[in-house]
Amino acid sequence: MKRIIASGLVLLSVAYIAKAQQIVQKPSNDKITPDMTEVWDPEVRIVQPGIKDSDAPSDAIVLFNGTDVNKEWEDSKGEPTKWLIQDGALVCVKGSGIIKTKRKFGSCQLHIEWKTPSEVQGDSQGRGNSGVFLQEQYEVQVLDSYNNRTYRHGQAGSLYKQHAPLVNASRKPGEWQAYDIIYTAPVFGSDSITYLVPPKVTVFHNGVLIQNNVSLRGPTVYIGVPEYFVKKHGPGSLFLQDHGNPVAYRNIWIREL
Amino acid sequence: MKRIIASGLVLLSVAYIAKAQQIVQKPSNDKITPDMTEVWDPEVRIVQPGIKDSDAPSDAIVLFNGTDVNKEWEDSKGEPTKWLIQDGALVCVKGSGIIKTKRKFGSCQLHIEWKTPSEVQGDSQGRGNSGVFLQEQYEVQVLDSYNNRTYRHGQAGSLYKQHAPLVNASRKPGEWQAYDIIYTAPVFGSDSITYLVPPKVTVFHNGVLIQNNVSLRGPTVYIGVPEYFVKKHGPGSLFLQDHGNPVAYRNIWIREL
Amino acid sequence: MKRIIASGLVLLSVAYIAKAQQIVQKPSNDKITPDMTEVWDPEVRIVQPGIKDSDAPSDAIVLFNGTDVNKEWEDSKGEPTKWLIQDGALVCVKGSGIIKTKRKFGSCQLHIEWKTPSEVQGDSQGRGNSGVFLQEQYEVQVLDSYNNRTYRHGQAGSLYKQHAPLVNASRKPGEWQAYDIIYTAPVFGSDSITYLVPPKVTVFHNGVLIQNNVSLRGPTVYIGVPEYFVKKHGPGSLFLQDHGNPVAYRNIWIREL
Amino acid sequence: MKRIIASGLVLLSVAYIAKAQQIVQKPSNDKITPDMTEVWDPEVRIVQPGIKDSDAPSDAIVLFNGTDVNKEWEDSKGEPTKWLIQDGALVCVKGSGIIKTKRKFGSCQLHIEWKTPSEVQGDSQGRGNSGVFLQEQYEVQVLDSYNNRTYRHGQAGSLYKQHAPLVNASRKPGEWQAYDIIYTAPVFGSDSITYLVPPKVTVFHNGVLIQNNVSLRGPTVYIGVPEYFVKKHGPGSLFLQDHGNPVAYRNIWIREL
Repeated sequence: MKRIIASGLVLLSVAYIAKAQQIVQKPSNDKITPDMTEVWDPEVRIVQPGIKDSDAPSDAIVLFNGTDVNKEWEDSKGEPTKWLIQDGALVCVKGSGIIKTKRKFGSCQLHIEWKTPSEVQGDSQGRGNSGVFLQEQYEVQVLDSYNNRTYRHGQAGSLYKQHAPLVNASRKPGEWQAYDIIYTAPVFGSDSITYLVPPKVTVFHNGVLIQNNVSLRGPTVYIGVPEYFVKKHGPGSLFLQDHGNPVAYRNIWIREL
Repeated sequence: MKRIIASGLVLLSVAYIAKAQQIVQKPSNDKITPDMTEVWDPEVRIVQPGIKDSDAPSDAIVLFNGTDVNKEWEDSKGEPTKWLIQDGALVCVKGSGIIKTKRKFGSCQLHIEWKTPSEVQGDSQGRGNSGVFLQEQYEVQVLDSYNNRTYRHGQAGSLYKQHAPLVNASRKPGEWQAYDIIYTAPVFGSDSITYLVPPKVTVFHNGVLIQNNVSLRGPTVYIGVPEYFVKKHGPGSLFLQDHGNPVAYRNIWIREL
Repeated sequence: MKRIIASGLVLLSVAYIAKAQQIVQKPSNDKITPDMTEVWDPEVRIVQPGIKDSDAPSDAIVLFNGTDVNKEWEDSKGEPTKWLIQDGALVCVKGSGIIKTKRKFGSCQLHIEWKTPSEVQGDSQGRGNSGVFLQEQYEVQVLDSYNNRTYRHGQAGSLYKQHAPLVNASRKPGEWQAYDIIYTAPVFGSDSITYLVPPKVTVFHNGVLIQNNVSLRGPTVYIGVPEYFVKKHGPGSLFLQDHGNPVAYRNIWIREL
Repeated sequence: MKRIIASGLVLLSVAYIAKAQQIVQKPSNDKITPDMTEVWDPEVRIVQPGIKDSDAPSDAIVLFNGTDVNKEWEDSKGEPTKWLIQDGALVCVKGSGIIKTKRKFGSCQLHIEWKTPSEVQGDSQGRGNSGVFLQEQYEVQVLDSYNNRTYRHGQAGSLYKQHAPLVNASRKPGEWQAYDIIYTAPVFGSDSITYLVPPKVTVFHNGVLIQNNVSLRGPTVYIGVPEYFVKKHGPGSLFLQDHGNPVAYRNIWIREL
């Protein structure tokens, strides 16, 4: 509801909204005018969006664009990775270990596309398994979850062993899939081991909301119960996991929030 | 981090993660095994994503697909709208008033595409102005904000007069733009006029995060200060606003959360 | 910062604050005056606080005031409880089972005082164990945690097996202790088994903040991992647990939020 | 629900809870035992609570205990304040300006007691007006709101001009009142002017919950609309306001969270 222009019908629309809202509040002051609650400065920063919504916008850091992996990534020892570039995609090579970004990130928006092998092998956690670790700690599971039953909070789009996805929006193996992630880094309490504000994650899988600002209770663990304490950490690398399957990645970009 | 398979290198990777995390917690029990923290039931519901991420997934209600407006929408009086379908888009006709969905919604994921006229007329709030009202109350502003300065919290992607977008990710007039919205409906307190939990909104504009789970302080108002009270409301229609400009809409779908 | 009265020194104070805040925002409109952002109606409801802060305010439901247990409480079968009233306190009788309120509650503020036996017997979970269940599901642990080591998230003030208290603010056995609790009930998603908004709990133990608006991941469980799903539930009774120890309660009141 | 001891009746109680919860989840693994989800380390830090719940616990910083104001406080210029100590209370002297703590704080639990003059003078904002500023920015209003109508979000316990208290739990003028406050400091986005996580405040007034983890939309302002941006700030002093009335304070303590 904005400018009340010289149109009876638009004014009607304004009145309609007001009626629908059934606002209890009585206007406290008749003299207040619409312009008085406008705030003009500072101007909102301009970002050029991508041609497609999945393309990197102008303020994103492009972490992989199809050609060079060594600029932004390294292996766990800080050496060049053995992961391969094939057909413009970055493919995990079994046994080569994780890759991690040279840059460190805290809260961020992350876009990442991935594909599990079209030739299906194994089942449950053994099929098309990899993962995206936020801030070195918190895993968004990558898995071939198309006709592949596993435990709820271990399937694609789960926050591994903490939150199952709301729905299973998986594409078939061999098809590209996308995660759009909003990550809010934790704030630690003065004891340096508990979260004052826990890490929070939102995930869209192929355009479908599967995690809605959920709180994590601690770093991802494979055995046992994650707990709300960990040694206080600041920004961290993004990790992509080597889980022994040739999962491919492409079009990875990140915006710091 | 999942199955520890028979690969020394993957185990290395596991160890690396553990070291990086510097978890303070000592394992409380050596006998716990990974399978003990798996939860298999109920199976996560399967949703078929769209061909493109912007296409409606299988569990979405398609509110407009290019042909029929009267199935899901009506005008403010419950009559057929005078808005027009042109080239597969639904176009606002000045003076015809809002359109609203026949169905009512609470918390939801909403995808909606919109386009302001390629022939630029007017400025500030007078250029390509419309709006998406959630639950009949809370407006996500639609505006031509490309080279069109206005007040911060009145530009495209603002939660009108409450939250400016984090960045201005507008495309040029005449180009299609998209909002992907996560909306969490408010919970009212026992007094029926205050929010126990305020409404919260996340918005991506053309793939760029511009509202990050922000809390609203009340229904959208044009004059004065929104306040944290309104007569308790349940699910409501989605409104598209007639602000006197021929803004076009297409590909509108919603998923109830 | 409120009325700018005719006092140079108070004006100085106003200026000081403005400087300290270093607000980026330029005033958008010089004509706005302080009264224009005042909201007078509806008047805020008046509540008479207790004589002491721990006494029931005028809008509280008094659940136990030292004399009558049968008005507000019953056992798990809906029969009169075998718990005893001794010296104005309500004391758990081993083997008599839980007691629960006849009324059901959702979001609430709860004040409850409790005392473990002055004669110490047992250790860890075996000493002065009881518990307060919110909405029949979510336990705030009651335990003699004074010089009595147990697992972190099982001690007094823990949200049992989900959140350890931030600190251990226990008084000695035989001394009265207090919990002041803010509980926000969960909102369920459209699937009726996942939380759209998880239950949240804040607890003060003897005046010390020990749980700060933490999210629960599911109902309290003794064995296994709580998960973010449970059959959708509405308001529920408050339970006090019989864990076999003669824990005493007094001055229990609740305010619906 | 904890140790399953050798008591049929307690086991009954356990079963009762399980039934009440109607948990959908099937146990994923029969071999998991209760001890496997116990976490024992690190031990929760011990804090000695006060004799009364309003007394400072052992880990609090006592900001005023009735005798010395100059140890912890100073005026806006860093000089000794002209506020007076009378009968163990710290009393505002009109025209002397704010007092602020020498230490700076971020997230905290704050206990503070205050009293407005028993001899009533003035009305609305002119009666017994002072205020507690958190992190130099965010005011919890202090006012004589007993039989003294003013605007909703300007009365005692309001977050000034942002959130009215849920109820008016004021005591009479001349009587001591208490605020128990939980404050979570904001997290700023990478632009250094918007909140990634807004400041949040919970307030009990005389033991009654009046603000329930509400989000602030910006620093407190007297004129105009607070906005979600301010120059990024870190920890800040606590301010007590001189609004020209001889409001008294006592028993002020704070715990860093």
